Amino acid sequence: MQPLTGFRDFLPADCAERNYIFAKWREATRRYGFIEYDGPLLEELDLYKKKSGDEIVRQLYEFVDKGQRAVALRPEMTPTLARIIATNHRNFRKPLKWFSIPQVFRYERPQRGRLREHFQLNCDIIGESSAEADAELIALAIDVVRAFGFGANDFVVRISDREFWTELLKVEGVPPERWEEVLQTIDKSEREARTKTMERLGALAGPVFEILEKGGESTKLNEIIDNLRARGLSDFATVDVRIVRGLAYYTGVVFEIFDRAGKFRAIAGGGRYDQLIAQLSDNAVSLSALGFAMGDVVLGEMIHENASALRQLEVSVRSDHAIDIYVVIAKEERRAAALAVIQQLRDQGYGLDYPMTPTKVPRQFQTAEQLGAHTAILFGDEWPSVAVKNLATGEQRLIPHEELLTHLTANR
Amino acid sequence: MQPLTGFRDFLPADCAERNYIFAKWREATRRYGFIEYDGPLLEELDLYKKKSGDEIVRQLYEFVDKGQRAVALRPEMTPTLARIIATNHRNFRKPLKWFSIPQVFRYERPQRGRLREHFQLNCDIIGESSAEADAELIALAIDVVRAFGFGANDFVVRISDREFWTELLKVEGVPPERWEEVLQTIDKSEREARTKTMERLGALAGPVFEILEKGGESTKLNEIIDNLRARGLSDFATVDVRIVRGLAYYTGVVFEIFDRAGKFRAIAGGGRYDQLIAQLSDNAVSLSALGFAMGDVVLGEMIHENASALRQLEVSVRSDHAIDIYVVIAKEERRAAALAVIQQLRDQGYGLDYPMTPTKVPRQFQTAEQLGAHTAILFGDEWPSVAVKNLATGEQRLIPHEELLTHLTANR
Repeated sequence: MQPLTGFRDFLPADCAERNYIFAKWREATRRYGFIEYDGPLLEELDLYKKKSGDEIVRQLYEFVDKGQRAVALRPEMTPTLARIIATNHRNFRKPLKWFSIPQVFRYERPQRGRLREHFQLNCDIIGESSAEADAELIALAIDVVRAFGFGANDFVVRISDREFWTELLKVEGVPPERWEEVLQTIDKSEREARTKTMERLGALAGPVFEILEKGGESTKLNEIIDNLRARGLSDFATVDVRIVRGLAYYTGVVFEIFDRAGKFRAIAGGGRYDQLIAQLSDNAVSLSALGFAMGDVVLGEMIHENASALRQLEVSVRSDHAIDIYVVIAKEERRAAALAVIQQLRDQGYGLDYPMTPTKVPRQFQTAEQLGAHTAILFGDEWPSVAVKNLATGEQRLIPHEELLTHLTANR
Repeated sequence: MQPLTGFRDFLPADCAERNYIFAKWREATRRYGFIEYDGPLLEELDLYKKKSGDEIVRQLYEFVDKGQRAVALRPEMTPTLARIIATNHRNFRKPLKWFSIPQVFRYERPQRGRLREHFQLNCDIIGESSAEADAELIALAIDVVRAFGFGANDFVVRISDREFWTELLKVEGVPPERWEEVLQTIDKSEREARTKTMERLGALAGPVFEILEKGGESTKLNEIIDNLRARGLSDFATVDVRIVRGLAYYTGVVFEIFDRAGKFRAIAGGGRYDQLIAQLSDNAVSLSALGFAMGDVVLGEMIHENASALRQLEVSVRSDHAIDIYVVIAKEERRAAALAVIQQLRDQGYGLDYPMTPTKVPRQFQTAEQLGAHTAILFGDEWPSVAVKNLATGEQRLIPHEELLTHLTANR
C-alpha cells in the first residue's frame, strides 16, 4: 500500500507545492523568452549509452518492451532534446530558447535530496556559440532561483570552463580517451579525501592541485562575469575551476548553483555541449548548444528551510486550494433551485462547492470555511431570495435570486 | 532519431496545445472544487494484476527493476488513487473531490486516437454514495468538454448502470465468476457483429438483446437525469444501457462521452467503483468512490475538426508563445546599458528577448515581430534616451532611459 522506494505520492498539499514550483519555473523562463517543449518518457536505450556518461548508464531503468526493443526511462532530458533538435531544427529560427519540465528516473540509493525520480526544469539555448549565450543562460538560472524568494546571501552560481582543464590535459600529454576519467576525478575532488584524489590523478596530481588551490584565469569566464555585472547579477556568481560536471558531453563553460551555507546538494547545474547534436546525428547536424537542469527535490528542501521563501509558497498553496463560494442548502426542497444557481455561477468561472447530501446548516458553514470560501449563499426559507454572507466580515444580505449574479459580479 | 512508435515528441506548438488542454482541465475542475494530486509513474505490478481487468494487464509495460521488483508503468490512475486513499483517507474530510493529470502507458497497436502513451484528466469523488455524487461528477465531465467550446450538438454523455445488468445475471442464475466476461461481451456488442455477440452470450442472448433493443428503466438513472435537468445540462446526457465499460472494478453507474457524429472513440468514460478501495486494502478501508478519465488524444482530434474550438485553441497558443518586449541593440557600445535595462524589465515581469550577437537593425525588428512582441526598445545614437516603438501602430517615442519603466508601466 506504499509507493515504490524512491518514488513519491503527491497528496494535494504536496501537489500544490509542486505546482507552485512549476509555475515559478514557467514564469521565470517566460520572462527570458523561452518556450516549452517535451519528449517521451521512454526512449531507446541507445540514446543514453555512451552519450550520458557511465554513472547514468549504470543507473538506468532499462528493459526490453513487448516488441523486443531495448528501452529506458529517461534519466535526463538533454539526449532527447538533442534528438528532437537534430530532426526538426530546420523549422526554427536560431537561436532557440527552449525549456521543459520532465520527470526523470535513476535507479540509485534514495537519500536526502536524491530520490529515484524527480522533476527537472531544463533550459537550453541552441545555435548560439557566443559567450553572451552562456551569460544569458546563467542569468536565467539565477533569476529562476530568485523567483522563489532567495537572494545573493542564500545561493551562488559557481562557473568554470572545461576547456580550461582540457587545455592542461593537452599540455600534459594525457591521451583523449583518459580525459573523461580525469575530469570525473576533478569533479569528485571536493567530496573525496585528498589522498584518494591524488592517487587517482597520479602524475597529474601536482599541476591539478596547483590550479585547484590558486584558481585559474580565463578571458571567457571574465567576460561572462562582466556580462552578469552589467545586469546587476554579479553578486550571485563566482568563477570556480573545481566545477567540472559529471556528464560526458560537456565541452565548454559549465556551472553549478549551491546554497551559500553548503547544507544542500547542487540546486542546478549545466553547461555547453557543442558536440552532442553532431554526435547523435552522425554529423548530419552541427549546432552549438548549452543548457542547465534544476531539480524539484533540493529546491523544495531549501524552500522549507528558508522562512520567507516558505511563507511565499504557503500563501500560493492556500489560494490554489481555496474555493470562492459555498452554497448552503438549508431546505432540501430548494436543492433543485440551488443546482440551477450553482451551474450558473460555475459557468461564470466561480469555484464553488455545496453539500451532496442533507447536512445541518452549521456544519455546512464549517465546511465553507474549511474550503476557504469567501462567500456563502444560503438557500432556505427566504426563497425566492437567498442570503449572501461575506465569510470574512460576517456581513449578510438578502438578494432576490435573479439579481444574484449581478450582485456577485459587482462585488467580485 | 525518432521517438519510439506510439510515443510523441512535443515540439513547442504541440506543447502549447497540450498546456492549453491541461489549463482548461484545471480551470473546469477548480470550478467544481476539485483539488489536484499525483502518484508515481511506476508502481508494483501487483497493483494492476486482477484489479484492472485482463485487457489492461495484457497491455502493461512491465519489467523487473535492478532491485528484483516486478513493476509496471501505470496504465491508468484509479488503482494508484485507491492505494493513496486507503493509506491516507483519515487525514481528509469526506467527500473528497480530487483530480490528477497523469501520463499513462499501454502497449497496444498504435492507431488513430490511440497511442502507447497519453495524458488523462482523472476526476474522482471519494466517500459519497448518493446519486447526487454521480450527477455532480457527470456535470463536471460535461463542463470539462464544454470548456473547449463544444455544445450539446457536438457531444453527449451516455449513462448506464452496471447493477441493471448484474440484476439480470442474478435472475438468470449466471454464476458471479462469469459476470465479468458477460459484461465485456455486452460492452463490445456495439462494435461487434450481432451473430458473434449472440454466440458468446449463449442462453443469455435472448434477454440481453431484448434490453439492448428496447432500453431499460432505472429509478437511479432517472434521478441523475433529473438532477442534470435542474442544472440545465440534460441536453448533454442520455440513458443508454449499452454502456458497460471495460474495467473490472466498476460496480454501479457508468458513463461514456461521445461526439454526436460518431466519428471518434469515446472522449471520456467512468463510473462507480465502490469495492476497489476495500479490495486493495484487504477490507481495512471501505469507501464508496466514483470517477472518470478523459484523454488528451481524442479530445485534441475533436478540437482540430471543430472550427470554433480550434480558433479558441489557436488564440491561446499564440499568446502563450508571445514575448512582450524586444530590445533592439543598434550600437554594440550600448549593449551593457541595454543589459541593465533588460534585467530591470524582466524583474518587473516583462517577457523580453534581445539579440545575443551583433545583428543588423532591420533584422532585429523582424525578429521582434516574429516573436510576437508588442513593443521594441531601441538602444542607439539617442542614448541616454531610448526609442520606444509600438509594433502594432508603428508609433515611436524617445524616452530618457531612467523614465522607461514608468513609461512602460503607465502604458501596460
